[in-house]
Amino acid sequence: MTSIREVAKIAGVSPATVSRVMNGTANVDEEKRRRVLEAIRQTGFMPNELARALYQKSSKIIGVIVPDIENPFFSELAKAVEEQTYHAGYKMLLCNSDDDPKKEMMNIQMLVQMRAEGIIITTNCDSTSRVLKDCQLPVVVVDRKLTGVSGTAFIEANHYKGGCLAAEHLVKCGCKNIVCLRGPQAYSSGKQRYQGYLDTCRKYGIKEQCVDCTYDYEAGRRAAKEILRKFPKADGIIACNDMVAISVYKVLTGVGRRIPEEIQLIGFDDIRFSSLCTPEITTVSQPIREMGFMAAGIIIRHVEGGEFQQENIFDVKLVERDTTRKKSHQAL
Amino acid sequence: MTSIREVAKIAGVSPATVSRVMNGTANVDEEKRRRVLEAIRQTGFMPNELARALYQKSSKIIGVIVPDIENPFFSELAKAVEEQTYHAGYKMLLCNSDDDPKKEMMNIQMLVQMRAEGIIITTNCDSTSRVLKDCQLPVVVVDRKLTGVSGTAFIEANHYKGGCLAAEHLVKCGCKNIVCLRGPQAYSSGKQRYQGYLDTCRKYGIKEQCVDCTYDYEAGRRAAKEILRKFPKADGIIACNDMVAISVYKVLTGVGRRIPEEIQLIGFDDIRFSSLCTPEITTVSQPIREMGFMAAGIIIRHVEGGEFQQENIFDVKLVERDTTRKKSHQAL
Repeated sequence: MTSIREVAKIAGVSPATVSRVMNGTANVDEEKRRRVLEAIRQTGFMPNELARALYQKSSKIIGVIVPDIENPFFSELAKAVEEQTYHAGYKMLLCNSDDDPKKEMMNIQMLVQMRAEGIIITTNCDSTSRVLKDCQLPVVVVDRKLTGVSGTAFIEANHYKGGCLAAEHLVKCGCKNIVCLRGPQAYSSGKQRYQGYLDTCRKYGIKEQCVDCTYDYEAGRRAAKEILRKFPKADGIIACNDMVAISVYKVLTGVGRRIPEEIQLIGFDDIRFSSLCTPEITTVSQPIREMGFMAAGIIIRHVEGGEFQQENIFDVKLVERDTTRKKSHQAL
Repeated sequence: MTSIREVAKIAGVSPATVSRVMNGTANVDEEKRRRVLEAIRQTGFMPNELARALYQKSSKIIGVIVPDIENPFFSELAKAVEEQTYHAGYKMLLCNSDDDPKKEMMNIQMLVQMRAEGIIITTNCDSTSRVLKDCQLPVVVVDRKLTGVSGTAFIEANHYKGGCLAAEHLVKCGCKNIVCLRGPQAYSSGKQRYQGYLDTCRKYGIKEQCVDCTYDYEAGRRAAKEILRKFPKADGIIACNDMVAISVYKVLTGVGRRIPEEIQLIGFDDIRFSSLCTPEITTVSQPIREMGFMAAGIIIRHVEGGEFQQENIFDVKLVERDTTRKKSHQAL
């Protein structure tokens, strides 16, 4: 096999120059660079040495595995991770798992093999959780509570408080007939938000009524139609996230219901689109960027031997926009 | 350094079993798996062998570098690439470059070092184009025409036709005073769409009027305000993409202008959100998924020694929705 020395000899430069050209560092004379590239082409030299050096020392790679890069919550999270990793001299690699345990396994395995410094993951799969338990890399789990995974940090928003805030806001806006779109009960997010809704209903003596829903737009359309059938008198809807709120808005206004005059609507997450669309969606805001910064920060601190907290719960807050009646506009 | 044989000996299993455990393949007896993991922990064994094997043969990794994963055009594109790579037994790694030449270089270098099978990239940087020219990996450039990059395939939509379709549609919908939000003229997309608009104006004897704009939401807000100041009589707006159309909609309706009754509005791209929001945005559709499938397909065919086309121009089509007046509703 060709060595870097042979390439250097053919190009008439030092091995260090070959390295510099292959690393893409710019301080190589244009003529020398051409000779090196020509020698690499001639010899078919493949930079095993560099690759090995990279992976034997420190890859400086942080892997992120999300169920759906098209979901704005995850693309916003990944972008925050990327900013933080870059500032610290690391690189982020993003993998899409489609919520498929096989793809998750494949991605974890790939990141382990390339000696990533750590993995940031949102997973819904029990089998993946078991694998993560034995993973040699530090793992930060975001937005899902995995049971039995030790040695792993965990980040999520205060979903219980979020569920309370959403229900309380609708009550204060005058809603008497609130329907909760209940997110997946296997996820801590869905379970805790629903519990917050339930406890708030009890507190105010309001009837509990809910429709099951997942976190995507299409599920929101189906759930909205179910609300129209089952709860025609609903005057307030808690959507399980902003994407679902956007789809509920479309279905309800499509059949002539006025929002917020007849039905008030609140989302969850505060993805960027919730304030870009018209009208802007009232929502419970999770600090998505801060959660991404922290996820990256934990891996970096782990690499550098620093301390970090295992359980990290972020506060949420109500963001009043156009799909609920402003408090100043109503009699309480 | 610890070898895989030592780990196997300590665990009382064969080296192949150690490999299987580390690869995550499932057919290992639970008790043996525990012993292997314990032996790995005791010895601090790192799977160099596996990593080396991976990178010496075929990495089966396809790298994707986009300027902004938060931009739905790119997340939809990446998702299509991922689907296609997965079906063919490859893995996609996604990198975010923030339109920053330094990050692009870093990502390209990383993908070269990990022996990716190829790179799919959208870049606006001349310096990156020069680097790509010398890149040892096959490179597919999407949505930007790079000059002087040989050995590279290229994919984009027919932007000229798109510019014509958008202008022609507004003319047919009765607009007399069309303003074009002109995208960046350094990109083939911005330049060709604008040329299509110009040629259509000339064809119909309509005054050309434009405001410069980039492809993001904030730029759309600024441009919309500029239209209100400079062209108060505008009755049709061609936004440079759907995100910009969504922001123009917000600004215009915010000052009481009715869309499409007073001003008609058309976007570009047909990102998913253009039909999720209310009202749905009339747009010129690029086949984003098909473009992603093809980008991945080209790299895979290259790896497998097959033929592929270097220049790939996808057709665009008009999608009539709610922000322009339906043709059936108007007198021409």
